[in-house]
Amino acid sequence: MKKETFTLLENYMLSCMQDAAHDKDHVYRVLYTAMEIAENETVNKDVLIAACLLHDIARKDQLENPAICHAEKGAEKAEQFLRENGFAPEFAAHVRNCIFTHRFRKAMPPESMEAKILFDADKLDVAGAIGIARTLMYRADAREPLYTLQPDGTVSDGSGDVPDSFFHEYRFKLEKIYDRFYTEKGKRMAAERQQAAEDFYRSLYTEISGAYTSGRAALEKEIL
Amino acid sequence: MKKETFTLLENYMLSCMQDAAHDKDHVYRVLYTAMEIAENETVNKDVLIAACLLHDIARKDQLENPAICHAEKGAEKAEQFLRENGFAPEFAAHVRNCIFTHRFRKAMPPESMEAKILFDADKLDVAGAIGIARTLMYRADAREPLYTLQPDGTVSDGSGDVPDSFFHEYRFKLEKIYDRFYTEKGKRMAAERQQAAEDFYRSLYTEISGAYTSGRAALEKEIL
Repeated sequence: MKKETFTLLENYMLSCMQDAAHDKDHVYRVLYTAMEIAENETVNKDVLIAACLLHDIARKDQLENPAICHAEKGAEKAEQFLRENGFAPEFAAHVRNCIFTHRFRKAMPPESMEAKILFDADKLDVAGAIGIARTLMYRADAREPLYTLQPDGTVSDGSGDVPDSFFHEYRFKLEKIYDRFYTEKGKRMAAERQQAAEDFYRSLYTEISGAYTSGRAALEKEIL
Repeated sequence: MKKETFTLLENYMLSCMQDAAHDKDHVYRVLYTAMEIAENETVNKDVLIAACLLHDIARKDQLENPAICHAEKGAEKAEQFLRENGFAPEFAAHVRNCIFTHRFRKAMPPESMEAKILFDADKLDVAGAIGIARTLMYRADAREPLYTLQPDGTVSDGSGDVPDSFFHEYRFKLEKIYDRFYTEKGKRMAAERQQAAEDFYRSLYTEISGAYTSGRAALEKEIL
């Protein structure tokens, strides 16, 4: 891909992003990770670069109207932008398909190798320590707590029917992504990251629940 | 401490807190952890309970005017509240002193055992996985990034003269707290948490810097 083409796509991506640095940084991590996965694969690298740069351009649309799916809307916006800027219709359609299937939905799995690599690179950013860090930052933005308490006053580990929290997000989403990768390299990278996420969740739960059991019991002895 | 007294102090604390659940939850963790540390110490438990509940009541004042130190202002507000509510002047003064010294300032170390326990319990909430989680949530609130890039495009590990980020906060504050505890139990609990924080920082840095080195290099080969 020519440098001018890359800059054109990059600038369009930047113009679509929220102010928050983490949105833009996520796009660069996905792009770099995708290129790493693609190194030993036979793929159209230009399609992959364009798809990575543009995969989240409709995040803002979804944020403003949750009825919009950012994968569907982003696919449309990307195809339109590419056609308006003189890219071949087949190229624009391939990028569109990659973006359309990058979000996890059972009925719409990624099909081409480029689409599978974008999917894996995007999911790797929800795996391991980076997945934990991003989730904590998003939960803070959404004013969600780290944890909630059970009726008996102990800390919920996030499983079962409990209110939204970081622990809930971990048990219902983060810990379940590791068997959902498509490429061999993506699977290997995900497996390398898994332990870091599991260790962090376990440590956090142990630290917090310790306070709410032994510490709280020590307090109760003092309250008459 | 009588249940009514506890509720009086708890309600005053709640009335002083920001809306964010993490402020209030922090106070309960500090209280429970302090009671755990205090279990085998000869201390005035009522002073400790009051000091824990009220230690952050001036956080909001500091947030609205950063020239205010929440430890100094909180100490004043707590003493005034206690005296107005009929607590003995010596009790109010002791609670005041605990709150005054709970923030890390070299010139004002905690002196009584109650003050040392509050200090340690508060610092334990910046240690380990809970310290990482809270810092990530606060950084997100402050719109600070996870990491910044060096002039050569690689990821800064947070050391040296770099802009604010989670990595910077980790290297300049979080990783340095482990030798600053006063009580034996506090030191032990901090040591137990240290590995979790170090492991998380290392994993996060490895994951992110990997993308910005091998992934970025793979991309650059494709850009003409």
